[in-house]
Amino acid sequence: MSDTRLDIIAIGNAIVDVIAQADDAFIAAEGVAKGSMRLIDTEIATSLYGRMGPGLEASGGSAANTVAGAAALGARCGFIGQVAQDQLGEVFAHDIRALGVHFDTPVREAEPPTARCLILVTPDGQRTMNTYLGASQFLPAAALDRDLIASAAILYLEGYLWDPAEPRAAMRAAIETAKGAGRKVAFTLSDTFCIERHRGDFNALIANGDVDILFANETEILSLNESDDFEAAVAATAAKVPTLVVTRSEKGAIAIQEGARAEVPAEPIAAIVDTTGAGDLFAAGFLAGQAQGRSLTDSLTMGAVAAAEVISHFGARPVADIKALVTAKLG
Amino acid sequence: MSDTRLDIIAIGNAIVDVIAQADDAFIAAEGVAKGSMRLIDTEIATSLYGRMGPGLEASGGSAANTVAGAAALGARCGFIGQVAQDQLGEVFAHDIRALGVHFDTPVREAEPPTARCLILVTPDGQRTMNTYLGASQFLPAAALDRDLIASAAILYLEGYLWDPAEPRAAMRAAIETAKGAGRKVAFTLSDTFCIERHRGDFNALIANGDVDILFANETEILSLNESDDFEAAVAATAAKVPTLVVTRSEKGAIAIQEGARAEVPAEPIAAIVDTTGAGDLFAAGFLAGQAQGRSLTDSLTMGAVAAAEVISHFGARPVADIKALVTAKLG
Repeated sequence: MSDTRLDIIAIGNAIVDVIAQADDAFIAAEGVAKGSMRLIDTEIATSLYGRMGPGLEASGGSAANTVAGAAALGARCGFIGQVAQDQLGEVFAHDIRALGVHFDTPVREAEPPTARCLILVTPDGQRTMNTYLGASQFLPAAALDRDLIASAAILYLEGYLWDPAEPRAAMRAAIETAKGAGRKVAFTLSDTFCIERHRGDFNALIANGDVDILFANETEILSLNESDDFEAAVAATAAKVPTLVVTRSEKGAIAIQEGARAEVPAEPIAAIVDTTGAGDLFAAGFLAGQAQGRSLTDSLTMGAVAAAEVISHFGARPVADIKALVTAKLG
Repeated sequence: MSDTRLDIIAIGNAIVDVIAQADDAFIAAEGVAKGSMRLIDTEIATSLYGRMGPGLEASGGSAANTVAGAAALGARCGFIGQVAQDQLGEVFAHDIRALGVHFDTPVREAEPPTARCLILVTPDGQRTMNTYLGASQFLPAAALDRDLIASAAILYLEGYLWDPAEPRAAMRAAIETAKGAGRKVAFTLSDTFCIERHRGDFNALIANGDVDILFANETEILSLNESDDFEAAVAATAAKVPTLVVTRSEKGAIAIQEGARAEVPAEPIAAIVDTTGAGDLFAAGFLAGQAQGRSLTDSLTMGAVAAAEVISHFGARPVADIKALVTAKLG
């Protein structure tokens, strides 16, 4: 493999989160599955925003959160995603660049506006996401910086971005570019409902050898395999990908890499405030660890440390110095 | 006094805060006084935003924060302030309405955009504010809802809004309306640099009997009186306003009302994260207490409880249920 300019180049939805507190009754009345992500149109976005509580705005987007975290841990990162020419687009671009992440995807000048995710956080810390994809859903393959993708050790893709057609085509093109350059492809399954919509595609990518590192949580790995047997599901998928990482919330996480298995407990935290970004930051820690040549176990620990930080406050990106937290833990 | 529709109608800058962490060296390099508020133009706003870290966006504005807090404590509140027709303007309007605050100031359709405040929070929790006034500085007297002002028990004004000429004229008109309707006027001195710019005007308002309730912190009451003797400054101003409230950070707060003096300690908190909004929320608690007919001491305690909550997290508006915190403390 030739020298790399970046450790990770991610492609994902470029989203600004609007985080509000809500009670369980509000979630139930919306008819949305608590803890999940649903896509919403302009009408529902307007109506829901009008009814929800006051918000905090913070840059988000699953893969964007992951490179934000990985960059904070010292990895050289880039991001590809599309915002519109508006204030939320400026916020997204500012925040990711301020973290040292390379971001130069052209801004889309037409309607619709920049994507936003209306996140309802219940008193138990669970987040329920209502995503208005806006400009993000029209990311064209033409917007990809092929040279940058070819120069990054890992191409990281989010399952969420499989929903809209244009970015899906762009991600297929990006996989081809990365594979052609001898790079690794990492993929996160994102959400069980997302898997239900695209199980065939996801399994085909895996069967085709397109995925080198797969991230899933417990329900996602079960859904992918249409199984209710966790160990069987893990074994089945681990046989098809070189590295499988499965997060299990308070039960910790496991990884299976070329047959070797590692397992870590969850990091203890004082209180779960907002679980938004937990999986994203776990992936950030794991990938940053792998980029630094750390062991499988230490890479998992880095994931657990980063995830624990992000669920201890509102917002899906680190507030504390997670590099220092990792150093305190692992040296 | 006739029946009131509102307990408090506030006039202030309609601002969205952009909160970022910064170290002391960054503040020093900016040449800005730590802990203060400075007004910045488009050029500095763009340059500073480009250099500061990733941000959290949250509705702010001093008087707006105060009515947000007072509404959360059960007071009937309204707000007058001007946003532009843009995404940050929508955020501001949503957030204040979601708190149950009456807000119907017409949106300004021309440039400049909605006001924003670039807030740099240092590791000690101190906030240094860089305010781009945008649409807020053009609030015209014509935008005032005179009937609403006349129908509110208290008109609350922020000293910050004295800087731009149009809102200053609007506030003078509002005072006339409130006084004409037999209502009280509350005023916050906001900031020592603000006092330096407008000491003559502020003292004239007080001398004229236009201010019924005056809020200041320790340095502000000294600056207003050009004194370095705290008790002398308090006594001098208390002789001119029916109610004087002076906050003293970790030393608590005092109030002098028609000659009677009350004093409370600061509420203990685990850690100061971000002092933004401390004074605003103190005023919220005090005014809500007075609206509920609480004693001077209990009104101060409500201010201390609300201020303690807001400095325990990033952002200038309450995250926890401050009404429940007050009930736990005072019943």
